[in-house]
Amino acid sequence: MPGEGEVLVAVKACGICGSDLHFVDHGADFLRLTSEAYGGVKPTVDLSRDVRMGHEFSAEVIESGPNTAGPKPGTIVTSMPLLMRGGHRISLSFSNNEAAAYGERMVLTNDVLVAAPAGSNPDAIALTEPLAVGLHAVNKSGIAPGTTALVAGCGPVGLTVIACLKARGIGPIIASDFSPARRATAVAMGADVVVDAATDNLFAAWRRDGVNQPVVMFEAVGVPGLINEAMREMPRDGKIIVVGLCMQTDRFEPTYGVLKELTLQFVVTYTPAEFRDAMHLIATGVVDVSPMITGTVGLDDIAQAFTDLARPGEHTKILVKP
Amino acid sequence: MPGEGEVLVAVKACGICGSDLHFVDHGADFLRLTSEAYGGVKPTVDLSRDVRMGHEFSAEVIESGPNTAGPKPGTIVTSMPLLMRGGHRISLSFSNNEAAAYGERMVLTNDVLVAAPAGSNPDAIALTEPLAVGLHAVNKSGIAPGTTALVAGCGPVGLTVIACLKARGIGPIIASDFSPARRATAVAMGADVVVDAATDNLFAAWRRDGVNQPVVMFEAVGVPGLINEAMREMPRDGKIIVVGLCMQTDRFEPTYGVLKELTLQFVVTYTPAEFRDAMHLIATGVVDVSPMITGTVGLDDIAQAFTDLARPGEHTKILVKP
Repeated sequence: MPGEGEVLVAVKACGICGSDLHFVDHGADFLRLTSEAYGGVKPTVDLSRDVRMGHEFSAEVIESGPNTAGPKPGTIVTSMPLLMRGGHRISLSFSNNEAAAYGERMVLTNDVLVAAPAGSNPDAIALTEPLAVGLHAVNKSGIAPGTTALVAGCGPVGLTVIACLKARGIGPIIASDFSPARRATAVAMGADVVVDAATDNLFAAWRRDGVNQPVVMFEAVGVPGLINEAMREMPRDGKIIVVGLCMQTDRFEPTYGVLKELTLQFVVTYTPAEFRDAMHLIATGVVDVSPMITGTVGLDDIAQAFTDLARPGEHTKILVKP
Repeated sequence: MPGEGEVLVAVKACGICGSDLHFVDHGADFLRLTSEAYGGVKPTVDLSRDVRMGHEFSAEVIESGPNTAGPKPGTIVTSMPLLMRGGHRISLSFSNNEAAAYGERMVLTNDVLVAAPAGSNPDAIALTEPLAVGLHAVNKSGIAPGTTALVAGCGPVGLTVIACLKARGIGPIIASDFSPARRATAVAMGADVVVDAATDNLFAAWRRDGVNQPVVMFEAVGVPGLINEAMREMPRDGKIIVVGLCMQTDRFEPTYGVLKELTLQFVVTYTPAEFRDAMHLIATGVVDVSPMITGTVGLDDIAQAFTDLARPGEHTKILVKP
């Protein structure tokens, strides 16, 4: 079944991503904006057909294709969610045609997949992809020790940002969320101070606890209004890393940015090296992602899990396990 | 009349700045946004009183204050538009209390002013301040040869950006404006390609003439909508330097930024070193600012000059000469 250069795998676990939920609600907007952002290219996904999802996964190798030196059967692997075929990248994040990781079996490109060390926990390895998102955001920020980090939002993206900041020796890390459970997880992942977004404010906490040093802010919520709030509240020369994906039109005051010479750095995904680094952070135990895993469902319960995740107070990351 | 550490000067020439015009129309908004951006500080300007302006100037030294080794009388000087008194900065850009450069005489702080070489043309030296704005924008962009530069808007800010890009060996420089006169000035200042914003498009021109190399875009217009257009049209990893001051609320699609990992770098003003460097670029002839000077008026005709500048097709920089 796998072609040359490909490996057939059995999915062990697949995390449900916030972008999956966003896509269900705002998929048409997202495809339109993507097309506009790239000069009117045709969307690669047809919403009138079934869309397969599942891009945060671990899997066990079943067999390699012909002339393909893939990992031996039984090896736990993960992969950036894309196939390379004929020099083209085929996304597995939202796909009409390819099997993604909400399923039992899928095909991976051998040159893209990353094998985990023997004995790795497949549930943890499934979080390689979201950890790579956080690692990339931290790398792009250029943040170094001696800097205060603010993290708006303690969903999976904010939490992996926090974990990577902590691994880099950044502090204090001040984070905010509406959910008590998520704030507790943020502390488990490395946040030094957490504030309730309902009754307190990330920037007020920074003024109280931020120490007199430069500050970088990570916007990991992705709803309208937060970028402008960050621009209003950040100090001169402040840097705002936008890692939350807001798929709706937003409003802002350019004057805030100009007066204070702010930088807005938008980020998404990761490089192949960062993906591999993220897997090693998990496999070596430098980052413990287990506090993020708040539930497990079978393939038949994905719809219910999507509903549960829409109430963000309860869950952080639900794994689908076939 | 000048105090210790101060120098009394006679204004030789003062450029009318777009921010003066913006302030007349949007001053209350600007003061409100400034207050919001700095945690609710009280505005330093009271709009119910007369506001003095004029911050792009050259002047001739009349006399130095007591115990002050200022330049000898007759020296042509310019200065960042601020006074240092008791360790505090007092802005001369918009002031209720201090004489700014739309007038005959003013007081400068000796430690801040910059003396021009003997024989300098006072009209050209008056453009030190806007050239410093362009120089700072180019410095903050980190642009280097081997990069294509796009400049939206060929008003004074766009033109000084173009001049500083040219002085740095950047090319091609592609610029757009609605005004044929300003496009001609852009070519005189160093633009390689100019396009009519009414019938063509900066980004379309870049696709035609931009060469296959990284691109940095300078937004030097400052009206709503242009930042979002830049975000839609810029390629992956594109950097947008926002140097135009838009004092109104703007709208944008964060998705464009996230998908392409764009950077928005907002910039304003300059450092003391950049101000001095700008004066030397003019005094040494590296940058010829004379194409920007399209008119001269006396103090009695400032109101008419403001009206004339509101029709941007005709004028670039009008100098007020007492």
